Amino acid sequence: MSASNPVVCLLTDFGLTDHYVGAMKAVLLSWIPQAQIIDLTHGIPPQNIRLAAYHLLASYRYHPRGTMFICVVDPGVGSERKIIYMEAGGWHFIAPDNGLLSWMLTQETPTRIIDISHPSSIPLPVSKTFHGRDIMAPVGGRILGGEDPAHFGPTITSYEKIPFPLVNKMGAMWSGEVLAVDRYGNLVTNFRGAEIAPLANKSKIWIEMHNVPETIRGISDTYASVAPGKLLALDGSSGFVEISVRDGSAAQKTGLKEGSPLTLHFRT
Amino acid sequence: MSASNPVVCLLTDFGLTDHYVGAMKAVLLSWIPQAQIIDLTHGIPPQNIRLAAYHLLASYRYHPRGTMFICVVDPGVGSERKIIYMEAGGWHFIAPDNGLLSWMLTQETPTRIIDISHPSSIPLPVSKTFHGRDIMAPVGGRILGGEDPAHFGPTITSYEKIPFPLVNKMGAMWSGEVLAVDRYGNLVTNFRGAEIAPLANKSKIWIEMHNVPETIRGISDTYASVAPGKLLALDGSSGFVEISVRDGSAAQKTGLKEGSPLTLHFRT
Amino acid sequence: MSASNPVVCLLTDFGLTDHYVGAMKAVLLSWIPQAQIIDLTHGIPPQNIRLAAYHLLASYRYHPRGTMFICVVDPGVGSERKIIYMEAGGWHFIAPDNGLLSWMLTQETPTRIIDISHPSSIPLPVSKTFHGRDIMAPVGGRILGGEDPAHFGPTITSYEKIPFPLVNKMGAMWSGEVLAVDRYGNLVTNFRGAEIAPLANKSKIWIEMHNVPETIRGISDTYASVAPGKLLALDGSSGFVEISVRDGSAAQKTGLKEGSPLTLHFRT
Repeated sequence: MSASNPVVCLLTDFGLTDHYVGAMKAVLLSWIPQAQIIDLTHGIPPQNIRLAAYHLLASYRYHPRGTMFICVVDPGVGSERKIIYMEAGGWHFIAPDNGLLSWMLTQETPTRIIDISHPSSIPLPVSKTFHGRDIMAPVGGRILGGEDPAHFGPTITSYEKIPFPLVNKMGAMWSGEVLAVDRYGNLVTNFRGAEIAPLANKSKIWIEMHNVPETIRGISDTYASVAPGKLLALDGSSGFVEISVRDGSAAQKTGLKEGSPLTLHFRT
Repeated sequence: MSASNPVVCLLTDFGLTDHYVGAMKAVLLSWIPQAQIIDLTHGIPPQNIRLAAYHLLASYRYHPRGTMFICVVDPGVGSERKIIYMEAGGWHFIAPDNGLLSWMLTQETPTRIIDISHPSSIPLPVSKTFHGRDIMAPVGGRILGGEDPAHFGPTITSYEKIPFPLVNKMGAMWSGEVLAVDRYGNLVTNFRGAEIAPLANKSKIWIEMHNVPETIRGISDTYASVAPGKLLALDGSSGFVEISVRDGSAAQKTGLKEGSPLTLHFRT
Repeated sequence: MSASNPVVCLLTDFGLTDHYVGAMKAVLLSWIPQAQIIDLTHGIPPQNIRLAAYHLLASYRYHPRGTMFICVVDPGVGSERKIIYMEAGGWHFIAPDNGLLSWMLTQETPTRIIDISHPSSIPLPVSKTFHGRDIMAPVGGRILGGEDPAHFGPTITSYEKIPFPLVNKMGAMWSGEVLAVDRYGNLVTNFRGAEIAPLANKSKIWIEMHNVPETIRGISDTYASVAPGKLLALDGSSGFVEISVRDGSAAQKTGLKEGSPLTLHFRT
């Protein structure tokens, strides 16, 4: 594997005020000078593996096949947790083996998993706390550059999972939760757009929110279908139903946050 | 049009904590793998079209001719607002037709405008809320890659404008306002440097600020021309007079913000 | 010097909400369209030269030889301070001559210094306040593109220094300080890992912090060596001892910040 414009996609909780992201890119470009590097986000709250798993799930399929995702949210750095390289769906992934990849793996089947925790022939001294720079970036760069992944460790067959919060369906009452809150204050729920689509009549759906007096009626097509300042639900861009406020912030209006419970009702 | 290093410049209100910017870049690189992507800023406050219009106006001319600007501040996404592709001054622009481009167009004349709101042959399903990823990025990438813009929609002849806040000149008293506040707390005004330049003697200019007891006297050449902590005005780097505090923040010292009124006086 | 994938690394206090970083990149790509641009960070607090010097020191060595660092933390812009181009260790540096480069220069010896404050043949008008865009970016791009650095000004032999805060060693009691606080709340100290390494037994080291009742005993190998919420010290990834809290923020737990004094004791 050695494309003329190989793509690396970085997803970390490093933030942008330190030199950490820059140092990882420096190492990557040392190995693969022609790489295109995409910053998926570096704004994952420190050590929030679930939120990293969500953003990867919501966006990986838009990247060119062959993209190497390097994902570093790594509270266990330096402990016995593994670092894994994985191939799935035509993409490549490197991450600590802490469940970060597992939500994406509800959609894709891994075809190869390699334990790269202790790769031989990594040239720089490996720090105790920055394996993104010292292991994941050089291994990712070298594999993208054409080296056989098997050079970096043994094939393994399992990986850590964190459970994706499944919707609990009791007849016409489905219990769900807020998966993520975005910059606009949209509440991304765990109700998949594709799950909602077959319900006979979207106007007969309503959503109740914990400790919020207002109920949302129907799944709207556009923000413009309600008045400014009003709550609505729509089939969001990440594959999930989102709760929004037209020209405003649903997070602010409702007080809901990551993990807040929701109930969706429908009449057939 | 197909340069060896085509440049795409992104300007959005997406912020950097979600995957939205990364997803747009992923789609762009799918179509045009060799693109150079510049982030103009993603820190526009949500839905603040005016501030996006300002940052585009202040910087577009520094980009190589041929650059494709994709600008997404889009409170009307999903409504009947158009998405437009435009050629002006040798640059290319894609944006919702909500006035975002119109301040730049006080300096450049559009030579081609195409309504790309409903492009045929966009391969992925188009979401209701993320036209940056689903329409603007693929169309921008394909045009940069050499496709004829006419493939993506009909030529049109008008576009939405938001009025640029013009200086109101009453003899030797000019009324203006704060256009933008930057990271350092500099207050960028709508007094153009070029307008001020011909005034006979810059030392005979003074600026009064709303609810600020202190008056700024003269247009300084450098921050160092006043004592630390003192207010000054100078001909800023974006083409406008800026009000600053040496080694400090004029926004903090004066309490002024975007839209605050200013009065410039001069003696000839 | 003209590599096929020349690398430019930017380090500024511009933040990411204005167009300033984008404008610098636009100018760079005008001169050197095939550049790979790394953002080391743009989050240096306004005018904090020391912190910029720290981040450069901590990361420059991970960048490919030949990288052009353009560093802009420039409280003296427009004054008589110089702008310098420097070659050291196989890398290239452009910065205001205010000490920003001097901590990196405790590790590398400059082999060439040129005063580029007033370069001839800079095409755009030079603003009074944005020399990053108007001088440093075009000169950096042109040198990376193969032009002789001597075209841009005279060779000089000295540069400004800001003193690196050296550890004060009084027998078995070393006085140091906090150099930087990172996003995770880790306190990067000025005790170099290499200085600590030879001490006979790392378990016989302890660190006292100003106004913090708890003492840290030993230099740990991993975060996992203490219980969650507990303080520890380890040999950090930037070459210095770091004080951390497992699964938490040492900055928050201790109240220490940049410049806070520390004392390291050891028994031999």
